[in-house]
Amino acid sequence: MQFHHHGYVSGDPRVSPEADAVVDRPRDIPDVMDVLIVGSGPAGMLLAAQMSQFPAVTTRVIERRDGRLVLGQADGIQPRSVETFQAFGFAERIVAEAYNIAYMNFWGPDPENPSNIIRTSRTEDYALKISEFPHLIVNQARVLDYFAEAAAHGPGRIVPDYGVEFLGLTVREVGEYPVEVRLRHVAGDRAGQERTVRAKYVVGSDGARSGVREAIGRRHVGEVAAHAWGVMDVLVNTDFPDWRTKCAINSSAGNILHIPREGGYLSRMYIDLGEVAADDEHRVRQTPVGEIIRRANAILHPYSIDVKQVAWHSVYEVGHRVTDKFDDVPDGADRSPRVFLAGDACHTHSAKAGQGMNVSMQDGFNLGWKLGHVLTGLSPETLLHTYSSERQPVAQELIDFDREWSSLMARKPGEISDPQDLATYYLATAEFPSGFMTQYGPSMAVGDATNQALASGFPIGKRFASVEVARVCDGNVVHLGHHARADGRWRVYAFADERSGERSGERSALDAWAEWMSSAASPIVLYTPPGADIDAVFDVKVVFPQRFEDVDIMAVPGLFAPNTGPLGLTDWEKIYAAAPSAWHDADIFAERGISREGAVVIVRPDQYVAAVLPLDDPHAVAAFFEGVLLPVGRTLGG
Amino acid sequence: MQFHHHGYVSGDPRVSPEADAVVDRPRDIPDVMDVLIVGSGPAGMLLAAQMSQFPAVTTRVIERRDGRLVLGQADGIQPRSVETFQAFGFAERIVAEAYNIAYMNFWGPDPENPSNIIRTSRTEDYALKISEFPHLIVNQARVLDYFAEAAAHGPGRIVPDYGVEFLGLTVREVGEYPVEVRLRHVAGDRAGQERTVRAKYVVGSDGARSGVREAIGRRHVGEVAAHAWGVMDVLVNTDFPDWRTKCAINSSAGNILHIPREGGYLSRMYIDLGEVAADDEHRVRQTPVGEIIRRANAILHPYSIDVKQVAWHSVYEVGHRVTDKFDDVPDGADRSPRVFLAGDACHTHSAKAGQGMNVSMQDGFNLGWKLGHVLTGLSPETLLHTYSSERQPVAQELIDFDREWSSLMARKPGEISDPQDLATYYLATAEFPSGFMTQYGPSMAVGDATNQALASGFPIGKRFASVEVARVCDGNVVHLGHHARADGRWRVYAFADERSGERSGERSALDAWAEWMSSAASPIVLYTPPGADIDAVFDVKVVFPQRFEDVDIMAVPGLFAPNTGPLGLTDWEKIYAAAPSAWHDADIFAERGISREGAVVIVRPDQYVAAVLPLDDPHAVAAFFEGVLLPVGRTLGG
Repeated sequence: MQFHHHGYVSGDPRVSPEADAVVDRPRDIPDVMDVLIVGSGPAGMLLAAQMSQFPAVTTRVIERRDGRLVLGQADGIQPRSVETFQAFGFAERIVAEAYNIAYMNFWGPDPENPSNIIRTSRTEDYALKISEFPHLIVNQARVLDYFAEAAAHGPGRIVPDYGVEFLGLTVREVGEYPVEVRLRHVAGDRAGQERTVRAKYVVGSDGARSGVREAIGRRHVGEVAAHAWGVMDVLVNTDFPDWRTKCAINSSAGNILHIPREGGYLSRMYIDLGEVAADDEHRVRQTPVGEIIRRANAILHPYSIDVKQVAWHSVYEVGHRVTDKFDDVPDGADRSPRVFLAGDACHTHSAKAGQGMNVSMQDGFNLGWKLGHVLTGLSPETLLHTYSSERQPVAQELIDFDREWSSLMARKPGEISDPQDLATYYLATAEFPSGFMTQYGPSMAVGDATNQALASGFPIGKRFASVEVARVCDGNVVHLGHHARADGRWRVYAFADERSGERSGERSALDAWAEWMSSAASPIVLYTPPGADIDAVFDVKVVFPQRFEDVDIMAVPGLFAPNTGPLGLTDWEKIYAAAPSAWHDADIFAERGISREGAVVIVRPDQYVAAVLPLDDPHAVAAFFEGVLLPVGRTLGG
Repeated sequence: MQFHHHGYVSGDPRVSPEADAVVDRPRDIPDVMDVLIVGSGPAGMLLAAQMSQFPAVTTRVIERRDGRLVLGQADGIQPRSVETFQAFGFAERIVAEAYNIAYMNFWGPDPENPSNIIRTSRTEDYALKISEFPHLIVNQARVLDYFAEAAAHGPGRIVPDYGVEFLGLTVREVGEYPVEVRLRHVAGDRAGQERTVRAKYVVGSDGARSGVREAIGRRHVGEVAAHAWGVMDVLVNTDFPDWRTKCAINSSAGNILHIPREGGYLSRMYIDLGEVAADDEHRVRQTPVGEIIRRANAILHPYSIDVKQVAWHSVYEVGHRVTDKFDDVPDGADRSPRVFLAGDACHTHSAKAGQGMNVSMQDGFNLGWKLGHVLTGLSPETLLHTYSSERQPVAQELIDFDREWSSLMARKPGEISDPQDLATYYLATAEFPSGFMTQYGPSMAVGDATNQALASGFPIGKRFASVEVARVCDGNVVHLGHHARADGRWRVYAFADERSGERSGERSALDAWAEWMSSAASPIVLYTPPGADIDAVFDVKVVFPQRFEDVDIMAVPGLFAPNTGPLGLTDWEKIYAAAPSAWHDADIFAERGISREGAVVIVRPDQYVAAVLPLDDPHAVAAFFEGVLLPVGRTLGG
């Protein structure tokens, strides 16, 4: 965590100074704004936290509910989401309070007495095998609390407006604020009042029954629900020995997905309520909680639960639907998007793979920096097309995965030939539910694979997988990726060639690259706004292949130790060295297949690898950024 | 972190419900109170956070300053202190914002050119070699913020009264509130107003010039200061390559202790101002900061610092003084203490070993549970004698250590025969500055060493050194010691014999012990107040030598899975199994030398090992607690 570089701060370093642009903004929803986010769920609140890092952009969030979420909804947190929390500054806090999944156990009928269930297998959770982050269970309400804190404590000081309902919108063809939105206050003194506001962009993160989706006429396509599940968060006493372990339970009486929750006592149970008749007309949703508990006990036989408190319950029918496109641009139309959909508004599915909240958050992460870039003049509007083109296929994959997982979970014992196959599927697909399988195709924001071999362990289009390195200035072993916060900046990692970092006096490829990157033709010069800190758009770091003691920090090019802030202080935390550590046998060059000739890895503000380029061709960096950024005419030293 | 066991809670689990006893307490300082803490430094604020766990006790904190500490003072945090922060619930947060010491480097004159300094050695910091906690540097202000949060969020809801000065006190011989204290408001609307209040106990954590110490006539004895140091927190640009590494710098121009600080830019420098003349009369304290900077640059030659901002600076003369006794009971008098001294009020020394704040906090931790126990009727008043008898020798050791370290640091190059000896001393004494060397002697709160061999790695009288174990209910690998929060409870760890935990049906030593501990003669029955949860005083856990999968959790004695809270919910987190982990080759039985016949380890509320006892003799547990607790006459099942 870096702070004090604008002078000494005494209080909580997690609270950024309020930006000058924000101080005089009205508390009330203004008549015009840059971005209006409809809905304060995981997609909307991550987006709000991200937009708070672009304080020049006026962003508002409206939410029909009259305050913070209190109960229910999602609770599964992939390692990729914890990685994202790290970037927003609260991973260590939410990890400390969440349930950490170490094992998933599978239960099925006892072959000798099929009316009883027995444990058929234990499966160690995949999370820590493929990342440094765990797989957590914690109430969505707490996730939203942390994002709300990040939004409120960021320089943009964004706070949701609760008790405000979205009524409809119209996209005008002209004007600076072309989206006209009709709102109604539904809580507080102004309840019942309607008004019309205008925005440059509107984001519909307003859930499965999205009004924004309806307003832009997008089709939400997929299969009709056919299977009902009861879900409850309960405090119980029980003789079921795996009450505190995640379990898939399959018995002659039906199926349970059992999810222990934060705090050591609470668990969530998803209980199979069976096929829904075609003429049911959602009557299954009236199933009383007593009936859900009775079903749970029938499935758990010979074990039982004695329910002491039902914190929350619901019944839903599994649907699998995805919106055809995540923005308002008709196929073939030649204009930029003005309205976007994110989260459940554009992908709905069962809750049982624990995916929904996670994919929704990544929708927000993908969109946030793009809106920030376009609205601050860093990028052309065309960048906004990549939101739908990148996220819609991810949602489709999610639907496909969830459909397969749900149907495996809903089988009757007679349909199961191999009792281990659910466990096998669970492990075989670990990368998907971890959130690490997403790979964006080439676009203006993702380069091609020409030089992938220079850093084979950083696949282009996938998220940057961190490795521990040693910080040269102090010898601390730290995760290279964790220094990158969700601050809307691009990361450029120069992995030095073997000749660099030594006192030989010989000119290395790194030296030449750094010199060019400090020249008038450098993207840093072209795209960093005049008057801004030299690292305002690009956070340029170097990683040396040597041990940290062997790097002469005073001989490292100044590009990697810029002077920033009002005091012009040297930033010491951009210079790293490969380090064997307690966790990794090999160094980052070996772990990520980085060429000993060096390589440059460009990472987007949402942590996706945008390009892998040769160190000996700095023009390649310039060529990549030409496609995604707009020159602002900074002058050297400006 | 355990919560929800009193029913579902939606918000931040770090905020405890306010205790019923607290709701109607006055906001203003009352006329009478149980405990009055004078001073809100590290000792006083840890004590406040601890007393907040005893909400039946009325505790107030007064502080002359008109608000939170903003600047300066201590910044060195031992691993033992981070361990303590873990017990108070904020270790992961302060670790994330602090500077982590990975190395300490030593600089001395270049033999070839003695006017220049060169790096003579790098020393890897000891912290992670002897504990799972790091060695940190962070401003005392932030430590106090976190303790203030713990005090305010605990059930006792304790908030310091700022702007209130201690004037004096008188200990009366009689009455329920025998300590009469005179106060004056020095800030706010009531500035200038004086009043007299009465307390059962007063704690003087009011710093080196303690008014409480003076009021009880204790002698603060030690040597006269003879060496002056300037200290400054500065933001600089520099060519000194170790600006971000802790360094001891010894040059012909003097000495610097250099301490990088949180945030990546700030460092603290202790700069040698030389011997103070006998007739100086503290004139050295007027040394301007410009002169301190000039000295620093002279010492750093050929390097230099360009100071951009001085956040704080001070000049002090090193004294080494310790108070003869830490309470108000005269030698030979036959009464219980009423007034205690803690922190700088009873031990003052140089800041350069980074010890002061740490030892002060342990003063507060030692005293807190004892006051809580006595004031809630759990323990006899005689327990309070052990505060001075345990902490005064620790302070004496601190003074001795600091005197040696300071004089090593203040040497001139000509006085140093071996340039490595400072590094050697630093490493050789690692256990002391880590805070792990403290060992309390036998008393009513610490048993004798008769059975030490049953758990040789838990030395009686030293703090409980945690090891990773597997939690049986969910297979998570967790630190056994980290489950113990600073909640004022005793921990009783039953390390099971090898026959336990199996389904053999054979009666094990553990079964017999658990049965006795559930009988009418059990300390749990004798000392837990009627109506309180069965784990209100004793947190009894079991550790099995098997792997967690081999423990049949439903066959474990109910003693280790008690039903608590208004819903009578089962606590699943008291049953553990030895587990090899990523961090440890051996399991806890091997790591801590625990007998395969089992053992019982009793740990005090302040985390010190109070007793090691045989598993096959439950009467030994009863005998230990007879000395320190008072029976309350709970009935079985009550």
